[in-house]
Amino acid sequence: RTLRIGLIPGDGIGREVIPAGRRILESLPSSLNLNFSFVDLEAGYDTFKATGTALPDKTVDILKKECDGALFGAVSSPSTKVAGYSSPIVALRKKLDLYANVRPVKTTAGSSNGNPIDLVIVRENTEDLYVKEEQTKETPEGKVAEAIKRISERASSRISTIAGEIALRRQNIRTAAPGTSNRTSPMVTITHKSNVLSQTDGLFRETARKALAAQKFSSVHVEEQIVDSMVYKLFRQPEYYDVIVAPNLYGDILSDGAAALVGSLGLVPSANVGDGFAIGEPCHGSAPDIEGKGIANPIATLRSVALMLEFLGEENAAAKIYAAVDGNLDDAKFLSPDMGGEATTEEVLNDVLKRL
Amino acid sequence: RTLRIGLIPGDGIGREVIPAGRRILESLPSSLNLNFSFVDLEAGYDTFKATGTALPDKTVDILKKECDGALFGAVSSPSTKVAGYSSPIVALRKKLDLYANVRPVKTTAGSSNGNPIDLVIVRENTEDLYVKEEQTKETPEGKVAEAIKRISERASSRISTIAGEIALRRQNIRTAAPGTSNRTSPMVTITHKSNVLSQTDGLFRETARKALAAQKFSSVHVEEQIVDSMVYKLFRQPEYYDVIVAPNLYGDILSDGAAALVGSLGLVPSANVGDGFAIGEPCHGSAPDIEGKGIANPIATLRSVALMLEFLGEENAAAKIYAAVDGNLDDAKFLSPDMGGEATTEEVLNDVLKRL
Ligand SMILES: CC(C)[C@H](C(=O)O)[C@@H](O)C(=O)O
Ligand SMILES: CC(C)[C@H](C(=O)O)[C@@H](O)C(=O)O
Repeated sequence: RTLRIGLIPGDGIGREVIPAGRRILESLPSSLNLNFSFVDLEAGYDTFKATGTALPDKTVDILKKECDGALFGAVSSPSTKVAGYSSPIVALRKKLDLYANVRPVKTTAGSSNGNPIDLVIVRENTEDLYVKEEQTKETPEGKVAEAIKRISERASSRISTIAGEIALRRQNIRTAAPGTSNRTSPMVTITHKSNVLSQTDGLFRETARKALAAQKFSSVHVEEQIVDSMVYKLFRQPEYYDVIVAPNLYGDILSDGAAALVGSLGLVPSANVGDGFAIGEPCHGSAPDIEGKGIANPIATLRSVALMLEFLGEENAAAKIYAAVDGNLDDAKFLSPDMGGEATTEEVLNDVLKRL
Repeated sequence: RTLRIGLIPGDGIGREVIPAGRRILESLPSSLNLNFSFVDLEAGYDTFKATGTALPDKTVDILKKECDGALFGAVSSPSTKVAGYSSPIVALRKKLDLYANVRPVKTTAGSSNGNPIDLVIVRENTEDLYVKEEQTKETPEGKVAEAIKRISERASSRISTIAGEIALRRQNIRTAAPGTSNRTSPMVTITHKSNVLSQTDGLFRETARKALAAQKFSSVHVEEQIVDSMVYKLFRQPEYYDVIVAPNLYGDILSDGAAALVGSLGLVPSANVGDGFAIGEPCHGSAPDIEGKGIANPIATLRSVALMLEFLGEENAAAKIYAAVDGNLDDAKFLSPDMGGEATTEEVLNDVLKRL
């Protein structure tokens, strides 16, 4: 099988980590019978400055027509409001209907000093406040701005279904490797703020409950947690959680919170997933402070490559990458500065590649 | 001076901690020349079940007409949607225009094992998604619900101004007690998500910048942080922060996150502050799991009493309570179960009272 992968480095360290993502795909063992072809695509704030648009139509077209998946680096946000600029990744998620943003957070055997954390945040990726429908009025008391938070039964249902499926798949992986986890049954925790937002978050909650009550999820334990308590619990007992499903904005916040638990944003991958398409995207940003120094941590991108492959049905290839990354982290000889090490992007990458 | 204080225990352990709040007010040394009178007021889910309203008009009237301040316990939320029920504390904040929700989070000398944390979250308390303007439509694809997030220049400006004032006041306290902190200048961190919500959160950000650029805040260092990064940073380097100002919902989430850093929600106080009025409110909820057992931690309430007194201009009385509470925690002989101890509410309270 040959997969065609769009490469969208974006801004800042995106340009340093996406090439590492390409390298690991090219280095996968030939026994997997997987080949890759690549196409370089533009998006980001620099693209906006050069062309007036942060997400050229051509990028979207090629992704839709030619590609099986893609890797997205990071984008810089302007530090003050810039007319006409709007985040290309938010637009891309919507244009390709990549309705699930999947963000696993996991300690490796060597890195955890407390109980091992192994959870995944499944974030709705197309609606909520991210519809970006805003307006501003002038009033006698000054400006008043309003934004729409939109929650639909359709989006809430499909995100909850995929969360349930991910919970089942994780349980299968645990069953196949006994002794790696104490968890006996898969669990999904529904996050919302329906005590204040009874209609919108109330709809999310109800719909999630309904979707997860389906027969195929009968082995899945379902709980819920109000978003503010969820952040509290996430920090107090992260090892308790398995799959957390949340509307877009809460998912955004929770995934950064979860990343803090494992030491560095530089470790945390994500995949933007739609039907038959996935974009891998490291959770870190464009990191202007270290841009161009060659010391960005490539791990989040390498894991995002694996996550993309999982959702493209290539679980064996994904497993190889995860294992190589875990080997690098547990060995701890080649770690980038965000991890307390001194290795460059290239050195970390080479150490991972050796372990493939 | 005699202050009249409304007591609103609400539901669950609210009924166990609010009496402790009353007791500490009655036990303040007479040298302070402060007297208190009290009035018991109804609100909460039990009130709703009994009377059909969670916040009787009478409660609001008496607070407005007779009281100088109040203490609010906690409310239970129904576990499924209940027609006509809506949170009385959210309504109370709006009806009394208590526009600032002030939530200090602090390690005591004895409790911090890393760098000491001493920050305060100043949460806007009247608008954002808490305006609760929602509607639901039926569409061919199922239900679609929308909520309004409203951000006004007026509310953003006054919350930022009070955040700046709190930063200055904290600096004065530090200056008066040299050696207690390494912080050299006051700091306010503005939290928002203007990279996605350019109009609403953009207005919050711009207005906060403007308010904090006032001459009187020239000694205040002003920074900003996108809300998802803020949660990450809060967990990675909480000791860095001083005052964090945020729109309502982010403030709600951040304050639970900050509470997780100091060990127990049972320690974290808040005050709902308006012009000339303040309601102290522990950050924990009604805790149905321990209700009626007499083991609720009264510390969050005792600190909320102190915080209320601060905003009523009684800083000396407040300082006495803070010191007594810190003494109890550092001594660690009478700690409630959430703190790993075995003391009852009454025993913790008595230990604090002894130290007044
Ligand atoms: C850059 C920003 C628009 C984005 C988001 O909020 O989704 C980022 O924080 C993320 O989590 O991918
Ligand atoms: C109970 C709930 C409505 C409330 C809020 O969201 O404000 C609570 O979480 C708080 O922080 O005081």
